[in-house]
Amino acid sequence: MNTNFTIPDFDPELISQIQHKLDNKTKPVGSLGRLESLALQVGMIQNTLTPELKNPVMLTVAADHGITAEGVSSCPADITWQQVHNFLSGGGGIGLLSRIYGMDLWVVDAGVNYTFAPHPKLIDAKVAYGSENFRQKPAMTMEQCMKAFDNGRQIVRKFAQQGSSVIGFGEMGIGNTTPASALMSIICSLPVEECVGPGAGLSREGIQHKAQVIQEAFNKHGISDSPMENLARFGGYEIATIAGGMIEAACNRMVILVDGFITTSAMLVAQQMDSRVLNYCIFAHESDEQGHQKMLRHMNASVVLKLSLRLGEGTGAAIAYSVLKGAVAILTEMTSFEEAQVINTSHIRI
Amino acid sequence: MNTNFTIPDFDPELISQIQHKLDNKTKPVGSLGRLESLALQVGMIQNTLTPELKNPVMLTVAADHGITAEGVSSCPADITWQQVHNFLSGGGGIGLLSRIYGMDLWVVDAGVNYTFAPHPKLIDAKVAYGSENFRQKPAMTMEQCMKAFDNGRQIVRKFAQQGSSVIGFGEMGIGNTTPASALMSIICSLPVEECVGPGAGLSREGIQHKAQVIQEAFNKHGISDSPMENLARFGGYEIATIAGGMIEAACNRMVILVDGFITTSAMLVAQQMDSRVLNYCIFAHESDEQGHQKMLRHMNASVVLKLSLRLGEGTGAAIAYSVLKGAVAILTEMTSFEEAQVINTSHIRI
Repeated sequence: MNTNFTIPDFDPELISQIQHKLDNKTKPVGSLGRLESLALQVGMIQNTLTPELKNPVMLTVAADHGITAEGVSSCPADITWQQVHNFLSGGGGIGLLSRIYGMDLWVVDAGVNYTFAPHPKLIDAKVAYGSENFRQKPAMTMEQCMKAFDNGRQIVRKFAQQGSSVIGFGEMGIGNTTPASALMSIICSLPVEECVGPGAGLSREGIQHKAQVIQEAFNKHGISDSPMENLARFGGYEIATIAGGMIEAACNRMVILVDGFITTSAMLVAQQMDSRVLNYCIFAHESDEQGHQKMLRHMNASVVLKLSLRLGEGTGAAIAYSVLKGAVAILTEMTSFEEAQVINTSHIRI
Repeated sequence: MNTNFTIPDFDPELISQIQHKLDNKTKPVGSLGRLESLALQVGMIQNTLTPELKNPVMLTVAADHGITAEGVSSCPADITWQQVHNFLSGGGGIGLLSRIYGMDLWVVDAGVNYTFAPHPKLIDAKVAYGSENFRQKPAMTMEQCMKAFDNGRQIVRKFAQQGSSVIGFGEMGIGNTTPASALMSIICSLPVEECVGPGAGLSREGIQHKAQVIQEAFNKHGISDSPMENLARFGGYEIATIAGGMIEAACNRMVILVDGFITTSAMLVAQQMDSRVLNYCIFAHESDEQGHQKMLRHMNASVVLKLSLRLGEGTGAAIAYSVLKGAVAILTEMTSFEEAQVINTSHIRI
């Protein structure tokens, strides 16, 4: 079923056309640095010299995790559903920052251990009331995992059909650094100890315990050659839903804004399925959660921001979206030498 | 005349109150990283738990430089006045980005070698039609330099009186990396070679020549103990006007957004006069211009963004302003645990 998608390749001939357009803006060649490379990438993604960031969506996907029974989080699991309510009321980090930066926030219940009343901005994609404790049994059955993955695809396809050209992914799920670390260890081939960190506030002993729990789970279930199998055994509902959503976003030539540690673990899974998804991907920031940097290095990713964030929810992606707005405007709105009647210096290069 | 100002000290008791407010927002303590430290700083600057970014101004100060006669720039000097026209029409990097990020752009003619027609967004603070070639004679007389400095103060005072609480500084001036490098060398006590870079696009030989020109000027005029004297000998009109503007902004408890290499050289001068100006100062980004990093280190400055920008004009400051909006909103708009009915985890700290 995972091959049931097609991510478009980029048109290599477009690169030089976009670059030429950028080089003829009223500025020294290359002097807008990362903004120019972002503009180029968005042009390539949308296959045009005049890209647009239309109907920007922030998708914050929530789920609970049976692994919290092992004491891997410093926070009570009830915070997951409480934060969903908070976000839906415009509160919390992502409720605030998506509003400040002009992204349309949608919260997805991918597997929260709570029954929500319907809400216009809540998408019901619940597969179960939380994953299983994967120290004991697989976090999800393959069927559940594929269901969550497909839910992500369907949700994103709908936004694509409604004209969204950019989507940020964020998450909420107490305990979810543990599945993210497990997936990272497998996909990046790194020892578990290098993949765990404090999450919302674990002590050093707590971090060691988290690593031990993951190692025991690896020993119990074994590691598969199939990305989807590993996702089912050690992942979580929000991670599976986001991974599917990322694949679908790339299929629809949407710009993907990847947030922090958890969301990046979903991208690790997605790029194992088809590495072309990375072409569509803008890594918003480097998180302070230990391990995130190594995930990024594994994908040769360069980030937009380094702000020592470690909140998740999509908060870093929302801030990076603001930078992206400026970047795209350089390509589409900034005056050229000709338009501005400024002496053309595009032949001068460092 | 330089002592004719008072920069307010911060109230140390306010720190813990702002920190307490930040820690009770619905997020793990400290998890919004740099945004939280920015919010704290803006609260301290405005001496309140509820800071506001009111009437944000971008002041792009332009001037010409006699030193361009020595071939220290890859670009023709006419670009200075052409870009002033471009900015005033909403074009160029800063015309675009100040509009995108919601800053009110004003262009100051501090000493451009051109007679401009009046324009509603152009502030006439011209002291001369460009500085002198400081390889031959001081860039400005002390009188001219102090006039430019005072012009900056008067311009900013007016914005403060009109209710602006945040001001970004940018510049336009072909050749102005040369005075900026000279001032850097003096103030940071670094060899000239460590202070020069390609600017808009100098070759390696061109950079060596630039260093030689500065060294010869040092030998000719000598280095003074007075910041204003050195500014007059080796600076430029936009740098002097910006330095004065920064001092006045701090006097009026305004948030100062410092852009790239040139603007930071003005801050080097300002903090020599009164180091308290640094409390009011947010360094927007680390430029790709060699030397900027060392300037920042000299002031123990940490930047908001690293986007490989090297354009100047205020472009980095405009992008950082966007991050600042989110930061301040965390302090003033983000829900607390109590408001959101989320379990309080503010006792959990990494």
